[in-house]
Amino acid sequence: MTAAEEGAMQRVAVIGGGLIGASWAAWMRARGLEVRLHDPVPEVLAAAPGRMERFAADLARIAPAVPGGRLSLYATLEEALDGADYVQENAPENLALKRDLMARMDALLPLSVPIGSSTSALRPGEIQAGLAGAERILVAHPFNPPHLIPLVELVPGPETAAGVLDRIFAFFERHGKAPVRLRREATGHLANRMSAALWREAVHLVASGIASVADVDRAIRFGPGLRWAVDGPHMLYHLGGGPGGLAAYLEHLGPAQEARWADLGTPALDGPTRAALLAGMAEEADGRSLDELVQGRDARLIALLRAMEQVE
Amino acid sequence: MTAAEEGAMQRVAVIGGGLIGASWAAWMRARGLEVRLHDPVPEVLAAAPGRMERFAADLARIAPAVPGGRLSLYATLEEALDGADYVQENAPENLALKRDLMARMDALLPLSVPIGSSTSALRPGEIQAGLAGAERILVAHPFNPPHLIPLVELVPGPETAAGVLDRIFAFFERHGKAPVRLRREATGHLANRMSAALWREAVHLVASGIASVADVDRAIRFGPGLRWAVDGPHMLYHLGGGPGGLAAYLEHLGPAQEARWADLGTPALDGPTRAALLAGMAEEADGRSLDELVQGRDARLIALLRAMEQVE
Repeated sequence: MTAAEEGAMQRVAVIGGGLIGASWAAWMRARGLEVRLHDPVPEVLAAAPGRMERFAADLARIAPAVPGGRLSLYATLEEALDGADYVQENAPENLALKRDLMARMDALLPLSVPIGSSTSALRPGEIQAGLAGAERILVAHPFNPPHLIPLVELVPGPETAAGVLDRIFAFFERHGKAPVRLRREATGHLANRMSAALWREAVHLVASGIASVADVDRAIRFGPGLRWAVDGPHMLYHLGGGPGGLAAYLEHLGPAQEARWADLGTPALDGPTRAALLAGMAEEADGRSLDELVQGRDARLIALLRAMEQVE
Repeated sequence: MTAAEEGAMQRVAVIGGGLIGASWAAWMRARGLEVRLHDPVPEVLAAAPGRMERFAADLARIAPAVPGGRLSLYATLEEALDGADYVQENAPENLALKRDLMARMDALLPLSVPIGSSTSALRPGEIQAGLAGAERILVAHPFNPPHLIPLVELVPGPETAAGVLDRIFAFFERHGKAPVRLRREATGHLANRMSAALWREAVHLVASGIASVADVDRAIRFGPGLRWAVDGPHMLYHLGGGPGGLAAYLEHLGPAQEARWADLGTPALDGPTRAALLAGMAEEADGRSLDELVQGRDARLIALLRAMEQVE
């Protein structure tokens, strides 16, 4: 799909100016887009540009901003939506609130304007149900922090038009994101489901006393985490299967993998498990504040993204 | 533990010269160690230096080699073990074969020389059982490719002496690896258990028709994979919980996480699932050979490791 077919969406309304909304807005502005930001809470709206500045500084360390980006703040939804080519919605994860907001936007916007929701917890079907413009509503779920992480999960509800998904896919791809499509909705979409699966076993390893929180974290960060940053899990089994690839892997090691699956833990986040996780995390953090830890994470993430930018 | 307490292990016997053994040997030599390599198959032994050269070239792109590294090839086990401070064993994943080899090495080596097995499939308890020198036997499991990935999982069997684990931990840490300790053995150790958990859900998403193989891979590689390369899963939930950290996350989102766990898939690697995986992988590979794909993976991995080397 060319920029013309996509509609060359240039004017984007970002609805909700909290952490996710401000992160989206900073990324869109750095991509040269015209961002129209609205939040119903005046303090949140006023704080957004400051947040965006920090995010923009991160982005500038990876790649220079595309010229032409603009930001306007609007106290009302109506003003923010005026003339928008696309809407990225970032309201709190409350179904009633989101449905009410969607209904208002659906009434205000021409049917040709897609609305993507950043929701991680809700399904597009429950957000779009009963609306006249249900076909232009989808989930466009970023991965935190949205200004840095390329992934955007595009999820159609039962009523979403395929052409809308295609346009939004082309829009994000053209701007350097890594959009993926779900064929149908699933609670938690893709990445959070797989993250939950990994974390379940990570919790089991701590809860059953096999290893400490810090050692479980190191095992991922200095092991498979490095590989998942450069290839997905299916591809890694394809490349780890020897000359026969994934077919040989399934043939020779499929039964061993199924046996491993059967041995995985099914922990509950009960009192003793929570206590073990929190004590282990205190030990791993070793006096470092959340701010220090976040800064370390983001410094490494930016270095990684810059390296990936250069190697491609 | 200082280098002196660790015993400043300098002369390492690498037993088994296949892909894993040659990868270990290349890394050890680049760390300035004296490597004594043995493989019972003359062709495998003869091919090892060529393999090691390619691995050494990869390593040189990340950091310069430590001077002094040496390599000697030995046709017999006895010669390779002569004077070794540490033994890294890389025989095929066959319990009877490995137990036989361990018994021979146990009879040849002074009790002060630890033997680490690279096994991913076997437990240290079944390898060491019944040997006079069981206390100096442990699993020291690398993550593929061993010359590049820092993780080394140290797993004690029921008879392994704690002091032996401490010494091997200090040895790998001093040479820039990221060793982790298991408190007790678990099938698959840590990283492969968590990888299996993630892959189970990745297979489920394909088998149930929610997304393609390629989109599931992109969702990891351009999403959580980037974060797991810079922090472990527990730490990421600690940093994603807002000002209250992991405690707040468990309090507010623990129930939602448990609900997500309950919704995860439990696929079997049956005929239809294998067919879906293989068709999806053919689509993702898009005509690229295994060699091309491996080269791409390793080029990105080296760029990533170099970036991490610089940011720390």
